Amino acid sequence: MEVEGKYYRTIEAIEGQFSVTIIDQTALPFSFNLVRLSSLKDIILAITSMQVRGAPAIGVCAAFGIALACKVDASNESINKARDLLIKSRPTAVNLSWAVNQLSNKLLKMPEDSRLNTAWDWSKNLAEEDVLINQRIGLAGLSILNEINKDKINILTHCNAGWLATIDYGTALSPIYKAVAIGMNIHVWVDETRPRNQGMSLTAWELKNAGISHTVIADNAGGLIMQKGLVDCVLVGADRVGIDGTVCNKVGTYLKALPAMEHKIPFYVAAPRSTFDKNFSMSNQCFEIEERDPEELFMMSGLNENGEVKNIRLGEANGYNPAFDITPAKYITRIICEDGAIKPYDIRSLLSSE
Amino acid sequence: MEVEGKYYRTIEAIEGQFSVTIIDQTALPFSFNLVRLSSLKDIILAITSMQVRGAPAIGVCAAFGIALACKVDASNESINKARDLLIKSRPTAVNLSWAVNQLSNKLLKMPEDSRLNTAWDWSKNLAEEDVLINQRIGLAGLSILNEINKDKINILTHCNAGWLATIDYGTALSPIYKAVAIGMNIHVWVDETRPRNQGMSLTAWELKNAGISHTVIADNAGGLIMQKGLVDCVLVGADRVGIDGTVCNKVGTYLKALPAMEHKIPFYVAAPRSTFDKNFSMSNQCFEIEERDPEELFMMSGLNENGEVKNIRLGEANGYNPAFDITPAKYITRIICEDGAIKPYDIRSLLSSE
Repeated sequence: MEVEGKYYRTIEAIEGQFSVTIIDQTALPFSFNLVRLSSLKDIILAITSMQVRGAPAIGVCAAFGIALACKVDASNESINKARDLLIKSRPTAVNLSWAVNQLSNKLLKMPEDSRLNTAWDWSKNLAEEDVLINQRIGLAGLSILNEINKDKINILTHCNAGWLATIDYGTALSPIYKAVAIGMNIHVWVDETRPRNQGMSLTAWELKNAGISHTVIADNAGGLIMQKGLVDCVLVGADRVGIDGTVCNKVGTYLKALPAMEHKIPFYVAAPRSTFDKNFSMSNQCFEIEERDPEELFMMSGLNENGEVKNIRLGEANGYNPAFDITPAKYITRIICEDGAIKPYDIRSLLSSE
Repeated sequence: MEVEGKYYRTIEAIEGQFSVTIIDQTALPFSFNLVRLSSLKDIILAITSMQVRGAPAIGVCAAFGIALACKVDASNESINKARDLLIKSRPTAVNLSWAVNQLSNKLLKMPEDSRLNTAWDWSKNLAEEDVLINQRIGLAGLSILNEINKDKINILTHCNAGWLATIDYGTALSPIYKAVAIGMNIHVWVDETRPRNQGMSLTAWELKNAGISHTVIADNAGGLIMQKGLVDCVLVGADRVGIDGTVCNKVGTYLKALPAMEHKIPFYVAAPRSTFDKNFSMSNQCFEIEERDPEELFMMSGLNENGEVKNIRLGEANGYNPAFDITPAKYITRIICEDGAIKPYDIRSLLSSE
């Protein structure tokens, strides 16, 4: 996407140098900083600190992590260690382990001296594929938005599933970008998405940057705006989609799916097929729901009266800070992937036909 | 309640001076400050700025506002003007208009020279009644908690319905104080309650002050902890209860009632009968849901690295900041008032028997 007239991706390979440049998402919305990552350690720090976040983006970033590990040591041991460290860095989104496992398994079958170049090219290709997939998600989602027969469509989204969460275009926001581009009248309700405020800090920034009408609300306000008839659909991303259509996404997603059903508002999840996990289902939650540092609840970052970015402490108590929750398939109207907008229960047949 | 060994109420009449002292709730949890209010203007400012908040507390505070108006001018015109200003100051909680209307109607039938003393005594009496009512709510709620057959009871609460929201004891927290006092093992999940963080700032402070085990969570995390079986009941206050058992409470309450039902977790609302409004029902939402300044979403207050209270700006965007939402009666297990823990649908017969 363009920022002040210049085209950016969240992760860019620096040719000939085996380094990548990322947009530091922890600095947004206050400053737009690029950061260079040159080692596996840099990559892991960027993922754990959420300088890079979003299931598809951390998948690509982690693949580059394997490549950067190979730059120093392309042995089996080095690759396996890098794989383990990367998978542990953020355990919930399946895209990360999917990418890291795919790439590692490929490399382990190859001679050591070709592993770095293969890993580098594979990671770049994964980034390119992500861009194409998200454009296809955009088109599939656009056909869904087109079915909503209103002059102005009010969409509620949670967290950030925009271009910042991917390499470009985004998942949940991709259909919105497409819809606005063809002149549809869209307004987005942006959940602030505590505790890390990705809605207020990232989604609002993206939409403002793209000139798309939006309003930030407290996560708590989503029920009231549905009660008042101010939401035409909910559109969110996903970190892992189960074979039975169960969705794991940013904590609080489930709390929007419940009122959406109560008020007969369609609830859409946009996610690439790399997010689908045939081992995951409502009855088999085969992965860890990441628990992040409770300090994220109590410390906030923002601008002081002099325009400097400062941290303040809101309180001090025991805290519990799970990063994701689970939305059962029965609450989900369609899952929008690169192959179309499918019913959640159809994921099983889609995956079994592979 | 006691704070550092000394007994306080949220609002205390200063005898012989026609002034009141309040605890400034906007300064908590960082400092415990008493503020003196000596005029109607002081009272209105304290209510709108939420130095005093909580439906029962603002009811008493507003009654004192009528008394302080009479101190300057006890004419019909003065009383009617004070009544209008006070009702407009926070329109959603019915306790405020209930108290102001009761007192004004009484005063308007009396000779002017007796109005000040009558208003003063009536307000003090209202405060005393509130304390007694909340103790009765505590006992009624205790019998409900006793029905939960567990060694340790995990209670989720939203916003602050503790002693700070009343004159003393609280509504939703009153049964918890009673239960802990008789040795029950209670742990409270405290929703931070964005955008004003009354959970993190006030409820956590109250519970810490009382030595009651608690954990602060983002509002978004309530669904996950219910999914994980970590909540035995939800217990919240109310700003207005309809004749059909519909509950208006702090925004986000509805988003906890929905998953509570989904996970078969009892959902209790504790509120005095002064919160009941026979004109309000699901089909007749006869009052305004207060919309507060969206700046409350974007500005946060906390301690900087030097321990000074500072404001920071989290973002800048269009915002929408409704303060309450509506929970239909079908989601509510019991409404706990001074007359017992009743089914929401029984409010109609309770009110019609008056």
